[in-house]
Amino acid sequence: MSSGACAPYDLKCKECGKSYGKQPLSICDECFSPLEVFYDLDAVKGSVTRESIAAGPASIWRYRALLPIPEGFQPDLPVGFTPLVKAKNLGKRLGASDIYVKNDAVCFPTLSFKDRVVAVALANARYFGFDTVGASSTGNLANSVAAQAARLGLKSCILIPADLEPAKILNTLIYGARLVRIDGNYDHVNRLCSLIADQYNWGFVNVNLRPYYAEGSKTMGYEIAEQLGWRLPDNVVVPMAGGSLIRKIKKAFDELVYLGIVEAKHVKFFGAQATGCSPITHAVKNNLDRHEPQKPNTIARSLAIGNPADGPYAARLIRETGGWGEDVSDVEVVSGIQELAETEGIFTETAGGVTTAVTAKLFAQGRIGKDETTVVCITGNGLKTTDVLQGKYDVGRAVKPRLAEFDAYLRELDGLPAAEEAELVAQ
Amino acid sequence: MSSGACAPYDLKCKECGKSYGKQPLSICDECFSPLEVFYDLDAVKGSVTRESIAAGPASIWRYRALLPIPEGFQPDLPVGFTPLVKAKNLGKRLGASDIYVKNDAVCFPTLSFKDRVVAVALANARYFGFDTVGASSTGNLANSVAAQAARLGLKSCILIPADLEPAKILNTLIYGARLVRIDGNYDHVNRLCSLIADQYNWGFVNVNLRPYYAEGSKTMGYEIAEQLGWRLPDNVVVPMAGGSLIRKIKKAFDELVYLGIVEAKHVKFFGAQATGCSPITHAVKNNLDRHEPQKPNTIARSLAIGNPADGPYAARLIRETGGWGEDVSDVEVVSGIQELAETEGIFTETAGGVTTAVTAKLFAQGRIGKDETTVVCITGNGLKTTDVLQGKYDVGRAVKPRLAEFDAYLRELDGLPAAEEAELVAQ
Repeated sequence: MSSGACAPYDLKCKECGKSYGKQPLSICDECFSPLEVFYDLDAVKGSVTRESIAAGPASIWRYRALLPIPEGFQPDLPVGFTPLVKAKNLGKRLGASDIYVKNDAVCFPTLSFKDRVVAVALANARYFGFDTVGASSTGNLANSVAAQAARLGLKSCILIPADLEPAKILNTLIYGARLVRIDGNYDHVNRLCSLIADQYNWGFVNVNLRPYYAEGSKTMGYEIAEQLGWRLPDNVVVPMAGGSLIRKIKKAFDELVYLGIVEAKHVKFFGAQATGCSPITHAVKNNLDRHEPQKPNTIARSLAIGNPADGPYAARLIRETGGWGEDVSDVEVVSGIQELAETEGIFTETAGGVTTAVTAKLFAQGRIGKDETTVVCITGNGLKTTDVLQGKYDVGRAVKPRLAEFDAYLRELDGLPAAEEAELVAQ
Repeated sequence: MSSGACAPYDLKCKECGKSYGKQPLSICDECFSPLEVFYDLDAVKGSVTRESIAAGPASIWRYRALLPIPEGFQPDLPVGFTPLVKAKNLGKRLGASDIYVKNDAVCFPTLSFKDRVVAVALANARYFGFDTVGASSTGNLANSVAAQAARLGLKSCILIPADLEPAKILNTLIYGARLVRIDGNYDHVNRLCSLIADQYNWGFVNVNLRPYYAEGSKTMGYEIAEQLGWRLPDNVVVPMAGGSLIRKIKKAFDELVYLGIVEAKHVKFFGAQATGCSPITHAVKNNLDRHEPQKPNTIARSLAIGNPADGPYAARLIRETGGWGEDVSDVEVVSGIQELAETEGIFTETAGGVTTAVTAKLFAQGRIGKDETTVVCITGNGLKTTDVLQGKYDVGRAVKPRLAEFDAYLRELDGLPAAEEAELVAQ
């Protein structure tokens, strides 16, 4: 564990600036705007360095000095520090010479970037004395809260839209969590969770613990910079559900620049959504100050948030950095999944299909320069959404274990004529 | 990438010692025994150190000086270096005070320890000039060969027993691999692959490339030692299919001791199998020189190798180190999966269920000391074998998004009387 001071932090209202110290609260009681964690970075300038970070563990906790972690907290799980992979084959298809995949499909423990935010939220849940934690979730968050709560000895209760993917439901129940399927979409689930958090005095990671939770996303930004050799990319393509991740990557980059750890650079932020739930990209494309809520209808259920809490902030960030918001159809989502698997050997879930397909679209539109450094954020694993691939692959017939039978079958697979016919043709 | 010399290596027959240099070959043509990679460790003594390793990347390539990697090979993928997690909760259940889980369920890229062996095999496949690679596989290997071949631009053709888990089949096809389902068990598949490798001049990772492939397993041993703070555990519990992994962990430990990187220590090796395919544990229990081949019948399909190539060596190692071989029923496999998820938040596949359940059995039998340092090797992810959990969990009914409805449902879940009744009782 890296030693050295941690940046002092407090909750403040993003809009009116009212300060709240440290408490489980996400909305300003004066102006009803969201609260956010603000740090005194000057207190750690010079002591948080490339070297102090590199001396830390191979997990998000190497950045703990820049996270809202209660004093005395002992990190328990090696979450994050996932691979950043140079995507040469994908780049060839897109005509991009310097493109990378940040691969949270293998994030410990539950194979999505949600493990990062949950780790930070639960560190605070314990500090605030909650014995039960919960979440409103489109799936990945449910998995992560259930798994990490089990490990930490906390009780958990997770609310999800009733129609979630079977793999994500099983991958929540297996950890012993209480799971409640709500007859409604994510936005219904989320509103109910606010009521429950108050009524039951539970720590909902993305409700009353949301400001702490959201900070966990910064670690994806820190890792990108560090894994690029302590430099910032020119472009980042980020999937958007609630709209928080994209903002926090920007916040991470800004902090590293402020601390003198990386050189300042103009980074463009690109947001990806599924067309069937695209309030943020719609707002970007139509230059709206505020997104119009939508009723989600897409196979990318982990992005299906029709009224994203951080939507306005995400749209503004995209515009201000000169990026763009783009969305893709469900058919393109599946193609995106296949393209990433076939080129880079990375199997991502529907959200990653969205991001990959949107990236292709952005290159085709000329919105991203072909020789610039671009990072594509893959946030979850394909084994969680296998249902969308059903019927896409023929598993073929069972073949007898004999060389001649194998030979004949391989010719079938490759669309070649059978061996005897081939000989006749050759004569 | 860590610089410094790599240990020179050659293929030799394990039994008669005949030397074969470097070639794609797995069986001695004199005595028909298996070939193995032998190193000149003296050549790197003093230059391969804790520091030189720690200066390398967060992947198996930090150990490249001790792997059979062709000169000039540039590692492409950050495989391995998975978390070693102290398992306090599991330990509490077992009465073990110092137990760890080595968690290859999150291995990059395809969530199993097979990614390690495939990475080393494919480095050699390129070197030997194969344009097509293949494998006979019980699933995890298929996934890994397909993914890594896609990334490296190699064609792949994978043979599997026809009845494999759907998730493992999909997770092979998604990468664009040719997949052939063989009407037979793993041993039939494996024999056919030997014929195909010769006939087609393909590089089968676990047939003609097997000696290189198998060395990749050593990296799990190196990581365990490094992650324990450069010391060896007292006990290791390892799942056994072909019987190779357990041997290679031992080989890794021995090399580290020989090089002066860790202190010598007597480590006991424990092997885990499913009772429905337990040739090695049967040999251990009955003190047989050679295992009797079995016809596999277990849900732990990734361990279902009835005639394991390294069975005799594994059994001997277990006996010589004073360990033990134990096996568990399919019901216990499922309980093992659940136990690891509920205690440590780690969702493993059937093989990990076997290892967890066997570990519990070994503690119950008093074969492992409660205060000794024990490492449990978890080799694959639970999302690949969700079929064995079907019907084990009730997803419950969909609940209307209202607090009162939630409240009532939670009482149902927790087995409490409905709220009104509760009030009556309290009166």
